[in-house]
Amino acid sequence: MQLGMIGLGRMGANMVLRLLRAGHQCVVYDRDAAAVAALVEAGAIGAADPADLCARLTPPRNAWIMVPAAVVERVIDDLLPHLGAGDTLIDGGNSNYRDDLAHAARLAPLGIHFIDCGTSGGVWGLERGYCLMIGGEAQAVERLDPILRSLAPGLGDIERTAGRTDPPSRAEQGYLHCGPSGAGHFVKMVHNGIEYALMGAYAEGFNLLRHAGAGRADRPADAETAPLRNPEHYQYQFDLAAVAEVWRRGSVVASWLLDLTATALQADPELAQFGGRVSDSGEGRWTSLAAIETGTPAPLLTAALFERFSSRGEADFANQVLSAMRYQFGGHRERIKD
Amino acid sequence: MQLGMIGLGRMGANMVLRLLRAGHQCVVYDRDAAAVAALVEAGAIGAADPADLCARLTPPRNAWIMVPAAVVERVIDDLLPHLGAGDTLIDGGNSNYRDDLAHAARLAPLGIHFIDCGTSGGVWGLERGYCLMIGGEAQAVERLDPILRSLAPGLGDIERTAGRTDPPSRAEQGYLHCGPSGAGHFVKMVHNGIEYALMGAYAEGFNLLRHAGAGRADRPADAETAPLRNPEHYQYQFDLAAVAEVWRRGSVVASWLLDLTATALQADPELAQFGGRVSDSGEGRWTSLAAIETGTPAPLLTAALFERFSSRGEADFANQVLSAMRYQFGGHRERIKD
Amino acid sequence: MQLGMIGLGRMGANMVLRLLRAGHQCVVYDRDAAAVAALVEAGAIGAADPADLCARLTPPRNAWIMVPAAVVERVIDDLLPHLGAGDTLIDGGNSNYRDDLAHAARLAPLGIHFIDCGTSGGVWGLERGYCLMIGGEAQAVERLDPILRSLAPGLGDIERTAGRTDPPSRAEQGYLHCGPSGAGHFVKMVHNGIEYALMGAYAEGFNLLRHAGAGRADRPADAETAPLRNPEHYQYQFDLAAVAEVWRRGSVVASWLLDLTATALQADPELAQFGGRVSDSGEGRWTSLAAIETGTPAPLLTAALFERFSSRGEADFANQVLSAMRYQFGGHRERIKD
Amino acid sequence: MQLGMIGLGRMGANMVLRLLRAGHQCVVYDRDAAAVAALVEAGAIGAADPADLCARLTPPRNAWIMVPAAVVERVIDDLLPHLGAGDTLIDGGNSNYRDDLAHAARLAPLGIHFIDCGTSGGVWGLERGYCLMIGGEAQAVERLDPILRSLAPGLGDIERTAGRTDPPSRAEQGYLHCGPSGAGHFVKMVHNGIEYALMGAYAEGFNLLRHAGAGRADRPADAETAPLRNPEHYQYQFDLAAVAEVWRRGSVVASWLLDLTATALQADPELAQFGGRVSDSGEGRWTSLAAIETGTPAPLLTAALFERFSSRGEADFANQVLSAMRYQFGGHRERIKD
Repeated sequence: MQLGMIGLGRMGANMVLRLLRAGHQCVVYDRDAAAVAALVEAGAIGAADPADLCARLTPPRNAWIMVPAAVVERVIDDLLPHLGAGDTLIDGGNSNYRDDLAHAARLAPLGIHFIDCGTSGGVWGLERGYCLMIGGEAQAVERLDPILRSLAPGLGDIERTAGRTDPPSRAEQGYLHCGPSGAGHFVKMVHNGIEYALMGAYAEGFNLLRHAGAGRADRPADAETAPLRNPEHYQYQFDLAAVAEVWRRGSVVASWLLDLTATALQADPELAQFGGRVSDSGEGRWTSLAAIETGTPAPLLTAALFERFSSRGEADFANQVLSAMRYQFGGHRERIKD
Repeated sequence: MQLGMIGLGRMGANMVLRLLRAGHQCVVYDRDAAAVAALVEAGAIGAADPADLCARLTPPRNAWIMVPAAVVERVIDDLLPHLGAGDTLIDGGNSNYRDDLAHAARLAPLGIHFIDCGTSGGVWGLERGYCLMIGGEAQAVERLDPILRSLAPGLGDIERTAGRTDPPSRAEQGYLHCGPSGAGHFVKMVHNGIEYALMGAYAEGFNLLRHAGAGRADRPADAETAPLRNPEHYQYQFDLAAVAEVWRRGSVVASWLLDLTATALQADPELAQFGGRVSDSGEGRWTSLAAIETGTPAPLLTAALFERFSSRGEADFANQVLSAMRYQFGGHRERIKD
Repeated sequence: MQLGMIGLGRMGANMVLRLLRAGHQCVVYDRDAAAVAALVEAGAIGAADPADLCARLTPPRNAWIMVPAAVVERVIDDLLPHLGAGDTLIDGGNSNYRDDLAHAARLAPLGIHFIDCGTSGGVWGLERGYCLMIGGEAQAVERLDPILRSLAPGLGDIERTAGRTDPPSRAEQGYLHCGPSGAGHFVKMVHNGIEYALMGAYAEGFNLLRHAGAGRADRPADAETAPLRNPEHYQYQFDLAAVAEVWRRGSVVASWLLDLTATALQADPELAQFGGRVSDSGEGRWTSLAAIETGTPAPLLTAALFERFSSRGEADFANQVLSAMRYQFGGHRERIKD
Repeated sequence: MQLGMIGLGRMGANMVLRLLRAGHQCVVYDRDAAAVAALVEAGAIGAADPADLCARLTPPRNAWIMVPAAVVERVIDDLLPHLGAGDTLIDGGNSNYRDDLAHAARLAPLGIHFIDCGTSGGVWGLERGYCLMIGGEAQAVERLDPILRSLAPGLGDIERTAGRTDPPSRAEQGYLHCGPSGAGHFVKMVHNGIEYALMGAYAEGFNLLRHAGAGRADRPADAETAPLRNPEHYQYQFDLAAVAEVWRRGSVVASWLLDLTATALQADPELAQFGGRVSDSGEGRWTSLAAIETGTPAPLLTAALFERFSSRGEADFANQVLSAMRYQFGGHRERIKD
């Protein structure tokens, strides 16, 4: 099948490679000519600009947009003059599902289909395949099925879920039509919200293991902290890489994120190259916003988000307020931050 | 190798079966004679009481205790008169690591070794193997290696962690000597603390997906809730079983707990047989206690614990206090709980 | 000074009474003719409809809207045909500050000023005065000063803040021009966000005091809960009304909310008339949304919000997911919810 | 009445001054002779050592211990040889209520009464009086009533709680016999737990107000943060000292802690002298421990505690784990911490 790909960053380029390997024809464009050239080398058809890309696609066209969320609108503006009724645009990036609703509403009167597709897989997707969460009209999604099936991981050697006896569904092959416009990015948004909290759970656990020697004599006493009631309970010094490793086999907390943690701790148990300022990309925020708007309790998902904010110093003034109060009522003078 | 097993519940019995399959000799005892008989049928040697069990073991004996945490002390009392210097007791249950410190201190003067072993694997362990987190003296753990290796999952077909090139360590085979007395149960405790938060992350995410239709006209308006600013953003009705399924392949949130969630949602997307009162077994609490005592932030792990408390109605009076305040300052009359 | 008041609910009616007492002239309107009549009885001038209200006000008019947030837009629509350049509209309700931005932008080209005013004080405001947080153009706010000063509590007998030696500022008299359009409702929003967390803090504390007898023999054992390690530590039975009372004097946690809690507990220490389903009115949600959008950690404010959601059963499905997982990996059967 | 005071730090010394003013006789001791001399100057009787203090007290003696929790045990050891049946020891410091249970059990066979007394009031107590939360036998507390009444704030000019018509209770005068041994420190513990969360609520609110200009052009863009969807919503620059001030009058969030915050912000709206590393003294931890042990949800109280831990860098390794995971699955390189 034929697909146009706009945006050849880490994700877009690898997706094209995976599609080429599966025998699809890809017309590719990026503002960075070198990115285009690299994929032409790999068998793709290069386009000079959006107009050229659309010209090289046979109607009804399928054009997949794989750019930062903030740029999607502009890319649609660039493509629109060169598209016609029956064509399909796919936003495969990390867009807010509310934008999908606007885009679909804008394109529908022109007879252009709009599909939103949340794409998970990161740098591993080229080999493992991409988990695809798709929203839009059933007919448009149906037509794109060969592309979607090739991008997705497929059944693989993962054991089938007990109770599933029918021929494997799309979900079992790693791609799912989740519902109407926005449904794909909504599910991807919640996916990332969960991801933040899963990450936070492991991070807190390993941090606690690292604090398990808090009662050891070789640790400096901390004037700011209440002394331990039972220092003999905190005398351990764990090999965190080994703990991560043993949990990978047979334990309830085994997961792909744990596999990655094991890799990182194996490379350096001190994780010294990481400064501990943790970014957040948007979906985690949107998940908590959706939880609040719909009245859904999401304490873990939101705590994971706030931990990231704090890691970047955004709680500093709040902490100063606390110190100021303590000084006011008790004359407590806090240690100055280094 | 020879092992005595005291406590033939779901965990203990399956562990004996796994050891028998691996060619070990097992002497088994339980207060429930039927449980003993069933394992004798499977090839184990039955014991009539703790004394009999010790008599049937060749010194130096290895006796594995697999009973509820509250009973361990009493079982040790029962065994002690029949043990001698050089013997080894293993507590493989969900004990508090602080009890291990006490038990080891009690047995050391008698020359009896004490090993604590956190055991993860649940009803799946018989086939998958058990993830073992072990504490105690190196020599005693070393002697028990054949038993531990047979209980553990082994390398299996799980991909090796990048950077591990030496002959597979014990950790890679699913069992780990974590440190001195208590270290095994400490690591298991943190393991379960993480588990609670991982579970909570998925639970919140699926709950949010279920609320994604909050703006649909067919949902009853709720007088207690601020109206949605943009009801058009919440019109979805997701197939939760399909979402769980698609995330199992290629996504960042893939895990064994997700596999189990997919199974449960496949059986009944409404989960109607579950009333939503969630128990907690102890380790989650101990994890948060350790975090607080060592000054380690653990907001997610602890929020997961508190969510369980709330599910059992333990926040009810707090909520009544809130309603009472609202009535006092604003004359608000809350809807009465059904 | 002359003021028109639209919306004569609990808040609007009391504010008119307070203004009448201070010698202001009030023209009042409400869809409920009885509410108008009651205030006419008290000295106000009644209006038959929005047009009549505007006709009875001398330009430049000041019209104060005190209606639910969802109705503000419609009230503005009703008033607009009868207003002219130089007039001022005040939204004194619990509106979202984003709406203020829209309203101000709509009215500016017509030469009509728009002031947003967050109003705190509840049923107590008539006697105590209202704390006013005001946004909009300085000139329009300045013109309204006599009204604002009369509504506000004034200096009262509250001790002046150390370091304040100038003539008392407006803030010290209980009203503050916080900034341009929306600033008043923004500050009021954060005020309510803080209020939710203050309330939650007391609620959790009193709930814990109520659980302080968890180890007493007369409390039923709970099969779902890990047994207490030291039941002798939890043998208390506190008189919550007395505790609330003693904290009112000399303690660090003294506050007006504590005063109200003391009143409620004095009336009934069991708070039996309150069912424990706690509503939320919007500002708490908006506060958390603003925290998330600006990357500000707000774990307490947001946890307070989620506790309210949970009190209304919105976590139920999440808890069912937890129970379903526990059943899958451990065969645990939860107690069914009553 | 006569009282011995051991420990003449900020709290103990001021309490002696308050008692002297009320006409009581105080025998005082501290390891620091200058502290003793200062109070002798003010009218107290100085003691050279614990034995001397006991000798100067007329049996049945009342000796009040006002020292750090970690030192109480040793002070009791020092006093015990010089006390006799019928004497009373009071621990008025911030001890863990579990220690009270041990102390009372140790002293009971000797006929010595033990009273635990949580004391709130900080540096303000000398003038305002101290809020006293008392545990122990009723008879011993009764005998000490003249001392307790003098330390407490008394009725003052605080409005009586609605519904209280009897002669003012002790609680209304600011001191309360809460129950048997430990009850006083238990209630004080929960008091401090609540205090932490109240403080956290204000701190988060003011921090959010400070972030309200996140969309202003003069604020540096942050590569780590998702761009604001609506920067026009975050253009404010609030006068935090004025906001704190206006909330002191007529608002729902008025409190003594807010008064102190207003003082601090009035002195320096930037709070520049406070580094933001916030200590915790023990009671907050014990409150959360008690919540966890009794199965009481306390998300706000515990989040407030964890925020303090994080302010001291205790989350750093957790954050490094998060960054390491992000690098592993997405190739994300975090900005290095300064």
